[in-house]
Amino acid sequence: MAKFLSRVRALGLQAFGLRYGSTMAAQKLNADLSRELVESVDNFLFDCDGVLWDGKGAIPGSLETIKLLKKLGKRVFYATNNSSSTREQYAQKCQKFGYDAAEEEIVCTAFIGALYLKNINFTGKVYLVGNPAMGVELDKYGIRHTGIGPDQEMIDDFYPEWLTMKLDPEVNCVMVGFDKYLSYPKILKASSYLKKQDTIFLATNEDSNLPAKGDIVIPGTGTMVHAVKCASRRDPIVLGKPERPMFDVLQKAHNLDPARCCMVGDRINTDIGLAKGCGLKSLLVLSGVSMEADVNPESSIFSKEQFPDYYTSTLGDLEKHLQNSQQQS
Amino acid sequence: MAKFLSRVRALGLQAFGLRYGSTMAAQKLNADLSRELVESVDNFLFDCDGVLWDGKGAIPGSLETIKLLKKLGKRVFYATNNSSSTREQYAQKCQKFGYDAAEEEIVCTAFIGALYLKNINFTGKVYLVGNPAMGVELDKYGIRHTGIGPDQEMIDDFYPEWLTMKLDPEVNCVMVGFDKYLSYPKILKASSYLKKQDTIFLATNEDSNLPAKGDIVIPGTGTMVHAVKCASRRDPIVLGKPERPMFDVLQKAHNLDPARCCMVGDRINTDIGLAKGCGLKSLLVLSGVSMEADVNPESSIFSKEQFPDYYTSTLGDLEKHLQNSQQQS
Repeated sequence: MAKFLSRVRALGLQAFGLRYGSTMAAQKLNADLSRELVESVDNFLFDCDGVLWDGKGAIPGSLETIKLLKKLGKRVFYATNNSSSTREQYAQKCQKFGYDAAEEEIVCTAFIGALYLKNINFTGKVYLVGNPAMGVELDKYGIRHTGIGPDQEMIDDFYPEWLTMKLDPEVNCVMVGFDKYLSYPKILKASSYLKKQDTIFLATNEDSNLPAKGDIVIPGTGTMVHAVKCASRRDPIVLGKPERPMFDVLQKAHNLDPARCCMVGDRINTDIGLAKGCGLKSLLVLSGVSMEADVNPESSIFSKEQFPDYYTSTLGDLEKHLQNSQQQS
Repeated sequence: MAKFLSRVRALGLQAFGLRYGSTMAAQKLNADLSRELVESVDNFLFDCDGVLWDGKGAIPGSLETIKLLKKLGKRVFYATNNSSSTREQYAQKCQKFGYDAAEEEIVCTAFIGALYLKNINFTGKVYLVGNPAMGVELDKYGIRHTGIGPDQEMIDDFYPEWLTMKLDPEVNCVMVGFDKYLSYPKILKASSYLKKQDTIFLATNEDSNLPAKGDIVIPGTGTMVHAVKCASRRDPIVLGKPERPMFDVLQKAHNLDPARCCMVGDRINTDIGLAKGCGLKSLLVLSGVSMEADVNPESSIFSKEQFPDYYTSTLGDLEKHLQNSQQQS
C-alpha cells in the first residue's frame, strides 16, 4: 500500500489518492499516510474524551503527537460538545491531563453558543435551560440571560393554574445545554417562549449520555433538548458535533480553509460526522467509543460515506509514524 | 348520496359501502350514515377533551348523544390518554360535566398500564416516573412500585459522583407517565434501570402538550417520555392513543369485536390513528383540535389512509341525525 501511494504521488496523482481515501474504505494510518495527512493539513481539531484522555487519565502518546504537530507549525483546537465548562475551565482541565492548551484553542459549546449569537448581532435576552458556564460565556459578549439554577416555581400547583405562569417579555431566544436542575417549570417556560415562532431556539448538543461504565447511565444534554423539543414541537439549531455551527463559527473567527483542516475523534457519528458535513479531513482513533469493526464494511452499522478518511489505534500512532517516516527519509 | 346508500343496503352490498367509507375521502355525517354507523357498531369509545367538553364546559349536544346511544343498547367507554387520574377520579370528572360515567367505563392510561402488567403476569417492581394515580392503579393489582413524588437525590453533586447513585435491585420495569416532579436524578435512575435490556419500558402516552390557548404551553407526558428515551436510548411500549395497547387491553377485558367498535375523537393523529391501527370504525368531530381542512384531500397534511370514516361538527349531530332519521322512517 505504501509503495502504491508513493507511486501515486510520484505520478502527481495525489488528488486521486485523497479521493480514494474519502469515498472508499477508511485507510489504516501508516507512515506514508501520516506524512500525506500532515502535509495536507494546517489545522487539527481534537475531540478530547477518548482521544486525549479517558477514565484512567491521559492516553499515552497523545501528548507527544500534539507537541510534534505544534512543532511542525500546525494550529491545534480542542473541540468538545461539553457545555458545562467555560473555555478557561476547559483549558484548565486539559492542563490537568498535561496538555498545554490555551483558552483560545478551546472550542466548547458554551462558548460557541455565545459567539453564534454575537455573530448574528443578537439583541434581547436568552432563556437558558443550562448552567453557569453558559452564563459566563454570554456575559463576555454582554448578552443578557435568565434561567440559570433551580426553578420549582408553581410546582405545587396544577394545570390550569400553570396558565398564569409569568413570562419575561424580553426573552427572544431559548438556549438549551446541560442542566442538572431540569424541571417541569423550566420546560414549561422554555416551550412557552418558543411558542413565538421568531424566538431563536439553540441547543449546545444532543449527546444522549456521558461516557460511563457499570450500572449507572449519566444522562447527557440530549435529555434536556428532547424534553424541550417535544413540548415546543420545534427543532433547535444544534451547535455541537455532528452539526455544522461549531465549525462554521470557528471557521469565521479564524478564516479556516475546511480542506486544510482535520478532525480527530473517537466517534463516527459525532466527530467524523462533523468532518464529513463540513468537508474536513478526518482521523478516527480507536481509543474511545468506536471500534475497528465500525470501519469494516462487513460489520459496520455505518455506511461507507460516513467512514473516516483514516483510522488508527491511538493518536500516539501519528507521532510514531511521522518520526519513523522522518528517520527513513 | 342517501339514495345511493339505501340502494347499496337494499342490494345487500353494505360491505362495499363500508369499504368505500374507509379507503376513500371521509364522509360527512348525515341521517343515513348516522343510522348506518349506529347499526354496525355495538361499542363506542369516546375521547373526552374536545369531544365531550372543552375549556368552556360540556359541549352542547354530546350528553344527549351518549344518552341516546345507551338507550339503543350501545356500550360506552371514555378513553383518555390522561395518566394523572385514577378511573374513579376520571369518572368523577365526567360526572362534573354532567356525564353519567361509571368507573368501569373509564379507560385511562394509569389503569391501562396496571392492567397491561397484570395481563403479562408481571412480578417484580416498577420504577415510576409518574404520579400518585398511577400508583393507586398499580396498588389495585398488588404490583409493587417506587419513585412517586419529588426526587432531588445527589442534585448538589456532579458527574462522576453520580456514578455512586444507589439503584433498587428489584426494579425490572420503568413506567413513564405525567410527572410534574421530573428531575435529573429521576431520568438518571430510569435510564440506569433500562440499561438492563430485560427491564420492561412502558409509557402511558406521548402527547407533547395539554390543550391551552394563550402564551403558555403546558408540557405533556411526551416531555417526560422523550427525556427518558433519549438517556436510555430505548423505545417504550406506548400504551395510549394512537398506539394499540389501550384497545388491546380493553378488547381482552371485554371480548370486543373491533369491527363493531367505533372510536370518536377530535384528533386525527391520536384518536383516528388508534381506530385505523386496530380496525375500528371512526368518527372525527370538529369541536376540538382537527378542522374540516384536515379531512379535505386538497388541504390536509394527512394521507387519505389516515382519514376517519365519518366526520361532523360536534357529537350532538349524531343524536340529531338519528332523531330525524327515526321521525322520517
